[in-house]
Amino acid sequence: MPLVRIDITTAYTTEEAKVLLDVVHDNVVKWFKVPVRDRYQVLSRHNEDELILEDTNLGFERSSKRISIQVFSRKRQDEAKLDFYKHVVVDLSEKLQISGKDVLISVIENGDADWSFADGEGQFVNGAL
Amino acid sequence: MPLVRIDITTAYTTEEAKVLLDVVHDNVVKWFKVPVRDRYQVLSRHNEDELILEDTNLGFERSSKRISIQVFSRKRQDEAKLDFYKHVVVDLSEKLQISGKDVLISVIENGDADWSFADGEGQFVNGAL
Amino acid sequence: MPLVRIDITTAYTTEEAKVLLDVVHDNVVKWFKVPVRDRYQVLSRHNEDELILEDTNLGFERSSKRISIQVFSRKRQDEAKLDFYKHVVVDLSEKLQISGKDVLISVIENGDADWSFADGEGQFVNGAL
Repeated sequence: MPLVRIDITTAYTTEEAKVLLDVVHDNVVKWFKVPVRDRYQVLSRHNEDELILEDTNLGFERSSKRISIQVFSRKRQDEAKLDFYKHVVVDLSEKLQISGKDVLISVIENGDADWSFADGEGQFVNGAL
Repeated sequence: MPLVRIDITTAYTTEEAKVLLDVVHDNVVKWFKVPVRDRYQVLSRHNEDELILEDTNLGFERSSKRISIQVFSRKRQDEAKLDFYKHVVVDLSEKLQISGKDVLISVIENGDADWSFADGEGQFVNGAL
Repeated sequence: MPLVRIDITTAYTTEEAKVLLDVVHDNVVKWFKVPVRDRYQVLSRHNEDELILEDTNLGFERSSKRISIQVFSRKRQDEAKLDFYKHVVVDLSEKLQISGKDVLISVIENGDADWSFADGEGQFVNGAL
């Protein structure tokens, strides 16, 4: 269920974007403990001047490979979120040589009645899930 | 007020997208009981590989007509949400022959002070609405 | 930290969009009292029929310069939100001659553990911020 909005620049190739989406999803499954087909991702590509990600004065620069990953999900434990952040960065570094400096992740939570996956039903409240 | 983000693939024609937006809005008005001009919709079109909507292992496939409807709104009763989910799907099926399997809906709630509709005022807190 | 999604029509030039983003950010810094490089903005451009912003029956029309500014942030005081709404509109009017009627602003809040700015760390919970 998390619905994940991923915003990148046009610096990513189609193949790199595909790997990126896979990495994010694999970590959603692993740390949020959801079914493997609980995959809902919306990718948007932006020109460089349409995706401004600075550093909150932490002291670094981001590259053209900067990413915003925004996760909309039912409530999650803080520990699961922190594991998710950590391992997305580890895997993106390993599989796409993306710097951890380029990765912004944020989470927005909602409740059980806030999801309908198909057929106009609320599957978290009608017992289907 | 709900601000509704609708993400579709390029499989939709301009005319189909227009009907889709109308259907979503008509149901917002009906089930969330808002004024008819309380309409705030942002449509984004994506290539097929940029809008991944699977099935949480519920056992179905989605087509190129898959949709994500994300509703940002003040608090709503669960019953209103469930009515909204149900009737959006009924109407999309009737008017656009879209399968209920293609429709993902989610809701994110906020509060009265979180909206400014115009002129830099908070209309839910200053009495205008 | 606020992550700000800004949706505009193609009626904006590149230069106007740049000024718009600067105005929004300057007011985020001023009213939400964040560091000057706490800047996270995602701009999306839409055809006219993809960005529908009406008026909740308040009695006005919006132009092709209509804007949706959606702020995702940690908890903010109502007063700070209202100051932000007011001054974004004042500054957009002054610097871009945008009418206050064209400006929709909304806020969605989350918590400290919901942000990772870089390196897979949760900077609001590990003491870095």
